[in-house]
Amino acid sequence: MKTALSVTRSDNFAEWYQAVVRDADMAETSPARGCMVIKPWGYGVWELIQQSLDQRIKATGHENCYFPLFIPLSFIAKEAEHVEGFAKEMAVVTHHRLKMIDGELQPDPDAKLEEPLIVRPTSETIIGDAFQRWIRSYRDLPLLLNQWANVVRWEMRTRLFLRTAEFLWQEGHTAHATEAEAREETLRILEMYREFAETVLAMPVVAGEKPEHERFPGAVTTYSIEAMMQDGKALQSGTSHYLGDHFAKAQNIRFQTETGDWAYCHTTSWGVSTRLIGGVIMTHGDDDGLRLPPAIAPRQIVIVPILRDKPEDAEVLAYCQALAAELSARTAFGVPIRAIVDKKPIRSADKRWDWVRRGAPVIVEIGPRDAAGDQVTYMRRDALRAGEKVASASLPRGAFIGAAEQLLADIQASLFNEAKARLDGNIRTDITTFEALAAFFGPAADDDDATSAFKGWVRVAWARPTGEALEAVVARLKSLKLTIRVAPADQPDRFGPCIFSGAPGVEEILIGRAY
Amino acid sequence: MKTALSVTRSDNFAEWYQAVVRDADMAETSPARGCMVIKPWGYGVWELIQQSLDQRIKATGHENCYFPLFIPLSFIAKEAEHVEGFAKEMAVVTHHRLKMIDGELQPDPDAKLEEPLIVRPTSETIIGDAFQRWIRSYRDLPLLLNQWANVVRWEMRTRLFLRTAEFLWQEGHTAHATEAEAREETLRILEMYREFAETVLAMPVVAGEKPEHERFPGAVTTYSIEAMMQDGKALQSGTSHYLGDHFAKAQNIRFQTETGDWAYCHTTSWGVSTRLIGGVIMTHGDDDGLRLPPAIAPRQIVIVPILRDKPEDAEVLAYCQALAAELSARTAFGVPIRAIVDKKPIRSADKRWDWVRRGAPVIVEIGPRDAAGDQVTYMRRDALRAGEKVASASLPRGAFIGAAEQLLADIQASLFNEAKARLDGNIRTDITTFEALAAFFGPAADDDDATSAFKGWVRVAWARPTGEALEAVVARLKSLKLTIRVAPADQPDRFGPCIFSGAPGVEEILIGRAY
Repeated sequence: MKTALSVTRSDNFAEWYQAVVRDADMAETSPARGCMVIKPWGYGVWELIQQSLDQRIKATGHENCYFPLFIPLSFIAKEAEHVEGFAKEMAVVTHHRLKMIDGELQPDPDAKLEEPLIVRPTSETIIGDAFQRWIRSYRDLPLLLNQWANVVRWEMRTRLFLRTAEFLWQEGHTAHATEAEAREETLRILEMYREFAETVLAMPVVAGEKPEHERFPGAVTTYSIEAMMQDGKALQSGTSHYLGDHFAKAQNIRFQTETGDWAYCHTTSWGVSTRLIGGVIMTHGDDDGLRLPPAIAPRQIVIVPILRDKPEDAEVLAYCQALAAELSARTAFGVPIRAIVDKKPIRSADKRWDWVRRGAPVIVEIGPRDAAGDQVTYMRRDALRAGEKVASASLPRGAFIGAAEQLLADIQASLFNEAKARLDGNIRTDITTFEALAAFFGPAADDDDATSAFKGWVRVAWARPTGEALEAVVARLKSLKLTIRVAPADQPDRFGPCIFSGAPGVEEILIGRAY
Repeated sequence: MKTALSVTRSDNFAEWYQAVVRDADMAETSPARGCMVIKPWGYGVWELIQQSLDQRIKATGHENCYFPLFIPLSFIAKEAEHVEGFAKEMAVVTHHRLKMIDGELQPDPDAKLEEPLIVRPTSETIIGDAFQRWIRSYRDLPLLLNQWANVVRWEMRTRLFLRTAEFLWQEGHTAHATEAEAREETLRILEMYREFAETVLAMPVVAGEKPEHERFPGAVTTYSIEAMMQDGKALQSGTSHYLGDHFAKAQNIRFQTETGDWAYCHTTSWGVSTRLIGGVIMTHGDDDGLRLPPAIAPRQIVIVPILRDKPEDAEVLAYCQALAAELSARTAFGVPIRAIVDKKPIRSADKRWDWVRRGAPVIVEIGPRDAAGDQVTYMRRDALRAGEKVASASLPRGAFIGAAEQLLADIQASLFNEAKARLDGNIRTDITTFEALAAFFGPAADDDDATSAFKGWVRVAWARPTGEALEAVVARLKSLKLTIRVAPADQPDRFGPCIFSGAPGVEEILIGRAY
């Protein structure tokens, strides 16, 4: 079957991903090493993600603010464990001026900073410094802040949206009087992320706790939501950390209790990033390109007029514009429907396929006969083909407009259901020995980017080893390119033996290959 | 008279400004040199500015996108005139890793970048590089993009919101087929900024063209909007540049015309920043703190319950919450009214003055008598005092709710009218010699920060000299700490003689002291 992309998922999943990002006009690599340019269609998706999530963040009592891009080196040095986790990958500003020297523009040696500045890889240290100044009394708690910002982590091997040196994200930072309150916040956010991913991105996830060795540097407990991509790999899609009083002690974030004593705060941090867009692509894309859940589609209904340089063109265009106006006056997901007429001076067949690749949820094509017959011919992007052919349907104009909200809701639900069935159907629970695990996943491909057969995840019991025993487990898994994703929130009452040691199990975990 | 701030505008305007920023809880300096922390109340103002302006940017056909934080040094070097303007003040990233060496965390010498990266001071060069790749044909034009981003310009002497190393802004970048279209775009944006400043910020401005020596580095024509602060100084509050084909030629941004020839694009760029918040403070603040125009107030109506640790407290609180809910169900400026009950566990008198300093447009105080009598007692922040006393009014609850939208509109209008009268009343047009100009403004204070008597601006004719003659004019003005702000858009048919040379005038310009 001829598809709209030059490479299919089964040909080579990694190349297919790149083709979608390119052909859906989402983003491209930039000349600034490891950074991406997010193009209008990709950025439009990010804006909708921001709006939906920002509402949820504010509804749970958090306020937005903005902290500096730069962090003094000494701040990073203060939190030893944190440094260990991040020290290897940060952009360092050492000069504050350029100078023409011997005909070449270069950092001015006379403008060397006394203390280098780090471009924030995350903001715990600089926000903690503010917490330390702002928090005096139990009356100041909880302090619930969030910021939308760019961060930089130097990456040697980058992939658009999934792993780039600079990315966009939100980072929440909160301080609480007690461990119980901080832990409650951490879990409230985890649930907010789960609900957001499933409702808005139509991306089913498993929420759970990360194993010890996968914790955020400095965290006591790290939770994440994990989504299953169409190649069976896991994508960590959002994290929520309970930081204990580690950062509070390193930064002297203290408060006076109601009884007049001084106590350290318990802090949390949590974030999701533009990586979510990579997750949306790998969850919903098909061999014709992207399929966007309507809730985050910058254009939900695209109307393509079929023009033939004939007098009836004017009537077709007027019909399209009236239709777009009527649709825009309706709502879906609680906001006005985003409908447009595509009037670009290119062939209408090219327009159709541009919008297919970009993943517009509904593509309407209006020719003279539709205009004259007061009807609407449309394609659903989530069910584009019947066999090899493109499937279209027609409705009287009034019926189409009346059904538009439900149509978009149906597409949102169908994308979710398809992905949910894939996730639920591909977590094996019948593998109980490491040998069976190795046999199931098979040898790891040398090249991460190469396509390997779809495997999904395996759910097993383990004894939750620590220290060297855990390191040994991690190494055994690593030889198979496997990782422990999370211990899902829903745990049984009893456990089988540990798949690694045969000792009594104490927890079930998900194992899989991952991005 | 005792005021809510420890320093008044007439005591010391610069210190008063700092006091407002601090006491209104807008922002503070950060340990990262020259950068600011924007606190929730200040960031809330920025979010509302963003929302209103973003609507206008999109309504004029622009799409948002995101370009990298980092610009390769070679890109900056390419545009000679541009370098000249910015080279002196950029943050330079030279390393991508830290390392513990001799017990001290420092840039890893093995991780020195081959080519330094510049933290964007503005994005013409990196966006131009994308334009060069994306634009092929006249069909791709106009290309109308915008991004919301952080930028960094190293500043030795910083002032919160007005001049900081890192600041937040939007930068529009467009490419057009013809000079006429690009010039039209430049002026469309200038008008958009004027309308936005006056309508949303209630900040009257004069829009006009910058003189040659004040142009953006690389621009053919630079326009700005200029606002008059309460110390009589000008604040450049937004700029719009016609860049000609300078950047297009330096970066090879070409397109094939309808006739098949190749031509260079004409480009524009334009931006406003968090500096606008400084303008709002210095336009509307008074000796009791900030006064926020309701359109950008994160909370428009703040309800303070007067509680006395008595049984009737519950009734007062319930009454307040019902009032907030009813107000929130109404709209003002086309969106729901932002009303809250302040339940912080502090004295209600302290709450009143906190909200006065923060500039909440309407402060409601509800005691048991109000609750029992079904009435609302409120203060308008724009008219806080009658003589030395705080002025409050009472209305039946239903009447207050019914009048809330109009009340907020009235406050918005009254703040604008007050500032408009100040602007219009303080542009002198009767000064025709340089000696009279010098005498009017008087000697320049040594310290920029010191308060000097309110002078306003002077409108004079000039012969629009260029080259050395212009440099001489600039130097004469500089000796008085004066600058040419703009040639206002509305010009007369005939001109008096040039105030600098006595030669026939060709243009009228505004002269004043400035931030």
